[in-house]
Amino acid sequence: MKKHNFSAGPSILPQEVFQKASEAILDFNGIGLSLLEISHRSKDFVAVMDEARAIVKRLMNLGDDYEVLYLQGGASLQFLMVPYNLLSVDGKAAYTNTGTWASGAIKEAKMIGNVDVVASSKESNYNYIPKDFTVGSEYDYFHCTSNNTIFGTQMKSFPKVDTLLVCDMSSDIFSRQLDFSQFDLIYAGAQKNMGPAGATLVVVKKSILGKTRRQIPTYLDYAVHIDKESMSNTPPVFAVYASYLTLKHLEENGGIAAAEAKNNAKAKLLYDEIDNNPNFQGVAAVEDRSFMNVTFTLTDESKQEAFDTAWKAAGISGLNGHRSVGGYRASIYNAMPIESVQVLVDVMKSI
Amino acid sequence: MKKHNFSAGPSILPQEVFQKASEAILDFNGIGLSLLEISHRSKDFVAVMDEARAIVKRLMNLGDDYEVLYLQGGASLQFLMVPYNLLSVDGKAAYTNTGTWASGAIKEAKMIGNVDVVASSKESNYNYIPKDFTVGSEYDYFHCTSNNTIFGTQMKSFPKVDTLLVCDMSSDIFSRQLDFSQFDLIYAGAQKNMGPAGATLVVVKKSILGKTRRQIPTYLDYAVHIDKESMSNTPPVFAVYASYLTLKHLEENGGIAAAEAKNNAKAKLLYDEIDNNPNFQGVAAVEDRSFMNVTFTLTDESKQEAFDTAWKAAGISGLNGHRSVGGYRASIYNAMPIESVQVLVDVMKSI
Repeated sequence: MKKHNFSAGPSILPQEVFQKASEAILDFNGIGLSLLEISHRSKDFVAVMDEARAIVKRLMNLGDDYEVLYLQGGASLQFLMVPYNLLSVDGKAAYTNTGTWASGAIKEAKMIGNVDVVASSKESNYNYIPKDFTVGSEYDYFHCTSNNTIFGTQMKSFPKVDTLLVCDMSSDIFSRQLDFSQFDLIYAGAQKNMGPAGATLVVVKKSILGKTRRQIPTYLDYAVHIDKESMSNTPPVFAVYASYLTLKHLEENGGIAAAEAKNNAKAKLLYDEIDNNPNFQGVAAVEDRSFMNVTFTLTDESKQEAFDTAWKAAGISGLNGHRSVGGYRASIYNAMPIESVQVLVDVMKSI
Repeated sequence: MKKHNFSAGPSILPQEVFQKASEAILDFNGIGLSLLEISHRSKDFVAVMDEARAIVKRLMNLGDDYEVLYLQGGASLQFLMVPYNLLSVDGKAAYTNTGTWASGAIKEAKMIGNVDVVASSKESNYNYIPKDFTVGSEYDYFHCTSNNTIFGTQMKSFPKVDTLLVCDMSSDIFSRQLDFSQFDLIYAGAQKNMGPAGATLVVVKKSILGKTRRQIPTYLDYAVHIDKESMSNTPPVFAVYASYLTLKHLEENGGIAAAEAKNNAKAKLLYDEIDNNPNFQGVAAVEDRSFMNVTFTLTDESKQEAFDTAWKAAGISGLNGHRSVGGYRASIYNAMPIESVQVLVDVMKSI
């Protein structure tokens, strides 16, 4: 039976990526060796790394003032690297607290320096995106999370701030057209729209670095990774290759514009059902609804068993909500076909 | 033509690992989904992580006082995590400087606290292992590198020190029988004997943690990863799975004892040729020769073109020495068959 994978991450990727990644493990580029056994400094892999970095800039329409890095440690290590690299010894940073991962970022930054939380939706279990705040030039940077995977909220626009704009885009990167040049630093764990777990993307405007008067440990220093072109130490070869395949697939299939159109259609299909079906209700504030992670609950808990049985029988997996929200979460990342969303909607109609 | 892959790392792994890893990318455990698209908290992957951790303890014959972690960032990030977790605010650490990576470890530790380099072979381009030193209880820990990939030296025994014994085993872990209980902390980038790039193994005696009076950033804190069973954030799923396959293969084929016997035979075959063939000479001091990375040079540089042509024609790859040593380096990790070493020896005899 066909599977419909609504997992929040690691998550669905294009089938073509699985096929090509699987082949490369047996024989990479026809060289008679596995991708897993070649030097990261071999010309075949250096070409992959170079192109993986170049595609990001093309997709984001960014110029030479930005650098692209593939690192390890996930967004969690970026929570630490961002303040190490951008928060000056006597400065302060502004953060919004829009969920579990934003809280994690705030916690790490506070270990490094001074942090003000300028807005938070914690008091309502993060079911909306706070918008009523300003950030002045007294801050070294402003940090936000574009999409909150657990709670199903998404920033539809980004505030104009009088400082650097830093964004954790782990769960909605490459899902919609944005003016990426408004950001000074973007980071993302790969394991949603851009690859399997094990690689972390950082896109950084080079001119913002080197200003904190801090001694930065080598692995945590963006400047080191820029200088070594993401080869300061052995990179996560397979994860970078699979990310390269994923981004190449995106580029060859209409880029972010085409992905956004598909994502809008999928989100509309599912949210319309949530709004029109009396058995369901959405969790997030309507204007802040995520187009990647759709959180919803049953209005009548007595229907839970019937619903759970029905979606499992339809081949759907990964639909259980996160424990801090409950209910259901349908993650409909770039690679999710609208046909799978229709299967879910049909199940919702059936109970 | 059959390839003979002498790459220093990422490096050769068992063919069975490539086969199974390739299959799992198309369909993992017969669940109808790719290994790359499932949640790291799914029961199928949690079972992999649990078993990957358990195999390490079985292979090393370690008890419940040790914890096994799979992290990211390579040995390079361990250079930072070790002092963050073990070097107390007013304490000092002892390091030996036996090569490029040992130097990297020393550099990071010095950013965190006080470090004494108690022995070094830098003055002779790291061609031997210094042995004439003691380490007293005034140190929080002693750090050494068991095998120096670039220079081809290996510690044949470990000093008795009056403090914690910490070892970077990246390039010879699981290659020989040791009393692993003599170590308090072992770490290794996976990309030699235990898997592809992208995962980092840490084996740590739990009782040594929590004594530095330092605030440790979350991702850098071993205690956090122990508490979350290596799932503090999304682990590098594929790299952990491939490491699990590699260690399972080792365990099912006689464990470390059988690997050691094979490695000894391979090393003897190659070093005997280096010593008996007047065209070649070894780089490392004889008593410190690595059984993983065999470094050698031509005695007559005019034969270089003939030798290079001959080994390439024989299907050999990855034989060029590191730029800081020159000459040649044959990396003969666990997965390297003795037949491939024989091919190299035959080429050496032929010129």
